[in-house]
Amino acid sequence: MRVLGIDPGLTRCGLGVVDGRAGRASMVAVGVVRTPSDGDPGERLIFLERELDGWLDRFTPEVVAVERVFADSNVTSVMTTAHATAIALLTAGKRGIPVVFHTPTEVKAAVTGTGRADKAQVTTMVTRILKLTEAPRPADAADALALAICHLWRGAATARLDALAKAGAR
Amino acid sequence: MRVLGIDPGLTRCGLGVVDGRAGRASMVAVGVVRTPSDGDPGERLIFLERELDGWLDRFTPEVVAVERVFADSNVTSVMTTAHATAIALLTAGKRGIPVVFHTPTEVKAAVTGTGRADKAQVTTMVTRILKLTEAPRPADAADALALAICHLWRGAATARLDALAKAGAR
Repeated sequence: MRVLGIDPGLTRCGLGVVDGRAGRASMVAVGVVRTPSDGDPGERLIFLERELDGWLDRFTPEVVAVERVFADSNVTSVMTTAHATAIALLTAGKRGIPVVFHTPTEVKAAVTGTGRADKAQVTTMVTRILKLTEAPRPADAADALALAICHLWRGAATARLDALAKAGAR
Repeated sequence: MRVLGIDPGLTRCGLGVVDGRAGRASMVAVGVVRTPSDGDPGERLIFLERELDGWLDRFTPEVVAVERVFADSNVTSVMTTAHATAIALLTAGKRGIPVVFHTPTEVKAAVTGTGRADKAQVTTMVTRILKLTEAPRPADAADALALAICHLWRGAATARLDALAKAGAR
């Protein structure tokens, strides 16, 4: 399965494509889309849409995994993050690609074994899991890869639970 | 000047087109775009984008006025509202139409004279200002018209201030 992880943002939007399955993952691509924080909000979204369109067309992921953002942090960054998330939903939706959300805690736990890991630990584990020769930079890029890994590893467990739930509902 | 007011939302997105200038305003169109709250998030945004594209093409507003949402209210509704706002920014941005934000307090003050007016008072004043034979329903539609009126009435004052600021900066 191929997953595009998106760490949503407008100043920096991390993108990471990972192929794999539970317990095994390899990196296909990683990058960061940047737009100027003093730029016109509409133009920033248009640029991000074009970039996401390009990534989705080029790498044709089966799933898009996006970080779920909570509204209790910085107000302005929450809003621009939500705007970037909307563009992810829109561009993936137009291709019929499902979008799933994972919380930062879920991502940290999946990759490092603890939901309280810091950014450096996440980057270290992502580098090790994907057998990269150097750590992905900036942190948003590593986070996007971590999201994709999280989805692959949780996906297997979730699929089993879904199957059990469906069997139980019958 | 023609303004499209947008009361952003996914379950209900109010849209109101108003022609006018400071102190005078007439309604061109009003409506509400609805998407099912249990619908796929991507599909809801795609539907809203299509509707907004249609309104922008049909009514060719010079400005889009959107309600500025704060992150301190209900978390889920803030997120879906932010997603709808992103679609407004995206669709207007692609046509080079500027998007301006007004807070609920600014809108209420512009239309009723007090920033603490309730929804009923806003609807009553919108109906009176636009000389409508019946009150626009639902409240989201009235709010969208109120946003457009607010922009027209504040716009004149803001334009004067901008001109003064530019003259002062020289």
